Amino acid sequence: MSGRLTVVGIGPGSPDQMTPEAARALAEASDLFGYKPYLDRLAPAPGQRRHVSDNREEVARAGAALDMAASGRSVGVVSGGDAGVFAMAAAVCEAIEAGPAGWRAVEFRVVPGVTAMLAVAARVGAPLGHDFCALSLSDNLKPWELVEERLRAVATAGFVIALYNPISRARPWQLGRAFELLREILPPETPVVFGRAAGRPDERMAVVPLGEAEAGLADMATCVIVGSRDTRIVPREGQPALVYSPRSAGRAAR
Amino acid sequence: MSGRLTVVGIGPGSPDQMTPEAARALAEASDLFGYKPYLDRLAPAPGQRRHVSDNREEVARAGAALDMAASGRSVGVVSGGDAGVFAMAAAVCEAIEAGPAGWRAVEFRVVPGVTAMLAVAARVGAPLGHDFCALSLSDNLKPWELVEERLRAVATAGFVIALYNPISRARPWQLGRAFELLREILPPETPVVFGRAAGRPDERMAVVPLGEAEAGLADMATCVIVGSRDTRIVPREGQPALVYSPRSAGRAAR
Repeated sequence: MSGRLTVVGIGPGSPDQMTPEAARALAEASDLFGYKPYLDRLAPAPGQRRHVSDNREEVARAGAALDMAASGRSVGVVSGGDAGVFAMAAAVCEAIEAGPAGWRAVEFRVVPGVTAMLAVAARVGAPLGHDFCALSLSDNLKPWELVEERLRAVATAGFVIALYNPISRARPWQLGRAFELLREILPPETPVVFGRAAGRPDERMAVVPLGEAEAGLADMATCVIVGSRDTRIVPREGQPALVYSPRSAGRAAR
Repeated sequence: MSGRLTVVGIGPGSPDQMTPEAARALAEASDLFGYKPYLDRLAPAPGQRRHVSDNREEVARAGAALDMAASGRSVGVVSGGDAGVFAMAAAVCEAIEAGPAGWRAVEFRVVPGVTAMLAVAARVGAPLGHDFCALSLSDNLKPWELVEERLRAVATAGFVIALYNPISRARPWQLGRAFELLREILPPETPVVFGRAAGRPDERMAVVPLGEAEAGLADMATCVIVGSRDTRIVPREGQPALVYSPRSAGRAAR
């Protein structure tokens, strides 16, 4: 008598940016697993149990949630942003693949959400208006040389680049190194958006040219969007400038 | 006396995947602009005027919407999915940059939404669980050689690839050519997801190995996700297989 497990993307922060599908999935769960700041955003449901975990314990959290679902409970696993973008859905899939047969019998579902780069982009215009990529700057789970190789490939080919997990106490130098590397490929005037806590009360947006981009402008709650050669800035009187990437593109410059 | 223009991402199709922020922005608009199938998804609001346009007339639609907003109306421009991903937000920014000074005075806002690749990914597991890119396969606004160059760059560097605008009556061969090119770089067993109309009644999901991927499996409503070398398939008894990209990655193979 297997239960269910739903990984729910609750959006970037504002309850206004959580879909009705996500809200319903959360309300229907008997048990919620998640990182404390995400659980704290949600209104308590009567009789629902909460299992708070550390942000770094993704695989342990996935296993505990699958165990509970396999025992017949209706489990929700809470992800910030979208559930499938550098988030818990992949961790649960990994656990299902490696775990006991009972975990494969769990009714597993993923509820998508608005991921950080989309919320940040919306606040400044449309920097993701043409081809773009999302890259985690964390070298906890991949070698740093691979991060550099990927950054070079996409910057050279003309993609706008959204950087997730740009910086943390344990990874202080990676973002600065990424800017250095990108400055070798892209012009110094390329717009860089530092989008912190989009849609939350402590939201902070900054747009600076790549030539002046510094790691100190980001923290753990920041999504950094680095424009392509085509990304443009439109100044406006009395309103913040718009940042956008045109729908058309020329040949990738080298 | 300038008005406002809000570009609203209504999500991939199900009203359940539209955020409350988007629903409110639509309800508050005096005038809605959009492609007919998007407008048809929305419940009518009393007194609200609707301006239906062809899907190809993006710049004309942006200009008409800006003119109306500049005259003092409260205008909503409707986008499927997210407003900023291959959608109307960039077209409006382009029009603002090129247009009369009055258009820059319009109070302009973008409301993000769940974009197609996130909804498709959620239906099959977590194929976007690690570094990925979103690439429009349309060569209406960029040379085809640039599309090929970008495909090669991201496939080689190990990104999962979400293809938007994969095929249309006017662009029948591009997707097949893209598969050919990707088969030169990626192993034939690489999972390819054809996600059609995610969240809508006519939804259809198919997962096939790259070696057997055919353009005929896609139509205009399809988002195609091509895995990386790391993307995995987890078979399950009595349930569809899961497709996911692990959170960790090795060195990009060449």
